[in-house]
Amino acid sequence: MRENQLLAHIHARSADLVAAFGEVVVGPGDDCAVVRAGTGSLLLLTVDQLVEGRHFAADAAAAEIAHKAIARSISDIAAMGGTPAWALATGLLPRHYERADELFDAMSAAARQMGAPLVGGDIATWDGALALTCTVGGAPHPARGPVLRAGARPGDDLWVTGRIGGSLRSGRHLRFVPRTTIGAWLCDALGPALHAMIDISDGVGVDSARLAAASGIRAVIDLPRIPLHDGVVDPLAAIGEGEDYELLFAVAPGSALPPQAPDGTPLTRIGRCAEGSGCIALDSGGHEHDCAHRGWEHA
Amino acid sequence: MRENQLLAHIHARSADLVAAFGEVVVGPGDDCAVVRAGTGSLLLLTVDQLVEGRHFAADAAAAEIAHKAIARSISDIAAMGGTPAWALATGLLPRHYERADELFDAMSAAARQMGAPLVGGDIATWDGALALTCTVGGAPHPARGPVLRAGARPGDDLWVTGRIGGSLRSGRHLRFVPRTTIGAWLCDALGPALHAMIDISDGVGVDSARLAAASGIRAVIDLPRIPLHDGVVDPLAAIGEGEDYELLFAVAPGSALPPQAPDGTPLTRIGRCAEGSGCIALDSGGHEHDCAHRGWEHA
Repeated sequence: MRENQLLAHIHARSADLVAAFGEVVVGPGDDCAVVRAGTGSLLLLTVDQLVEGRHFAADAAAAEIAHKAIARSISDIAAMGGTPAWALATGLLPRHYERADELFDAMSAAARQMGAPLVGGDIATWDGALALTCTVGGAPHPARGPVLRAGARPGDDLWVTGRIGGSLRSGRHLRFVPRTTIGAWLCDALGPALHAMIDISDGVGVDSARLAAASGIRAVIDLPRIPLHDGVVDPLAAIGEGEDYELLFAVAPGSALPPQAPDGTPLTRIGRCAEGSGCIALDSGGHEHDCAHRGWEHA
Repeated sequence: MRENQLLAHIHARSADLVAAFGEVVVGPGDDCAVVRAGTGSLLLLTVDQLVEGRHFAADAAAAEIAHKAIARSISDIAAMGGTPAWALATGLLPRHYERADELFDAMSAAARQMGAPLVGGDIATWDGALALTCTVGGAPHPARGPVLRAGARPGDDLWVTGRIGGSLRSGRHLRFVPRTTIGAWLCDALGPALHAMIDISDGVGVDSARLAAASGIRAVIDLPRIPLHDGVVDPLAAIGEGEDYELLFAVAPGSALPPQAPDGTPLTRIGRCAEGSGCIALDSGGHEHDCAHRGWEHA
């Protein structure tokens, strides 16, 4: 069974959680879960795995593995417009693994630097390869609240932060900076006009299709508008690559955004939301390309 | 490097977290971390791994693997006297693993039944064996607050819930019920006289030594008092086995406890706290046995 099918099965079986458990505000299926903590404040929660041979090569530097392990989960908090607060990590280490100290020092440093100190974890050794997990908790934007994948409406504009493509071959996937600052700034700047958001982990194509499915709209991407990294030339290929960890967001029509965020990161309108379902990309000749499967295929 | 050494390294490097991050109340090294969430209410946080060939055999039933994956983390919440609230899980699955649906349905059911619905997770497939993680968040007892490993004083009595020994060979380690109800009831019944608590994951011996080290006391265990499961005959061997998932707790001298918790679980005074450090067990002949390493050795 493919991962996406299995996840769909889990999400379907979890659909009653919000009704059954009063503390659960958003269950499985978005970038983060949202639960009510103690006296009513909301908590964003996410967990991701980082697996040797899948998310990094066996010869990657410990500092890069550590950075990516933390940053992937922080990116999910960014996708909700939230601020990270704490992290927990696990390490499943090959027996006689010699870089454990270096790896955990680097994870601890990365987590602090990204605002989510590692407050706990678990370590086990085994005969297999290296596998890490990172759970991160955070707070939603105090005014805008959690920004979900659902919420985009027909007529909205679709925007991305930063540039797209070439993340794996350039090594950027090991060094990217999660967009927490920009996510929170978008909440500040747009307020309720920020309708929906997702981080681009698997590809602009498939992640736009996910936002479209959650929102009940059709995403239409203008390929010539896709902001490409230097050395990336084919936008249709680039939207199918994944590992960009930029933010893709839907904004009410007529909302003004500057061409750059305060930190200089480009902000680019790449498309729009329409009535319907699915996601298509239009090339410069006006040809339609189906996007639903343009992304990292979880085999 | 052995896991315990690595954990000690991590705990030492994390000693400044409480001072550096205002939200962190208890960092790595206890059964749970404690962080301040939003408006000031406290959150208990823990994560554990469950690894094929290490914590369960490859032929274990999916329902048993699922139960143990959730229950181990819930037991950490119990050890703080807390109440579980939500869980996140990850699964690293062997390629072409055929029991994924069954496994995640069982994890979801176990998590709901234990009061910590699975609100999110992550799945990846790879060429290795099965490895699961479960992160659980919970609330401390509203009056007593989080019960730490630190807090035991010379003169305190040491108690355990339930019975000890034979967990692995009997299969109990796959079916145990985490002691959340009793942990909370102990907080109700004893209040501030409940000085310290830990769950017995690695063995009464080594876990008593951990409580002693955190509290700055010497734990003295009376071996003839250890309540043994049917078929277990050697208390010295039993305190070195681990996987009991009972609660071990230190109580102010003179505090009365009934012989059973309200649910019928035995409560047994097994020793006391003295000035000094370490943990010793006294046999019926009055001979001392060092306990510091009587437990599951993390190789």
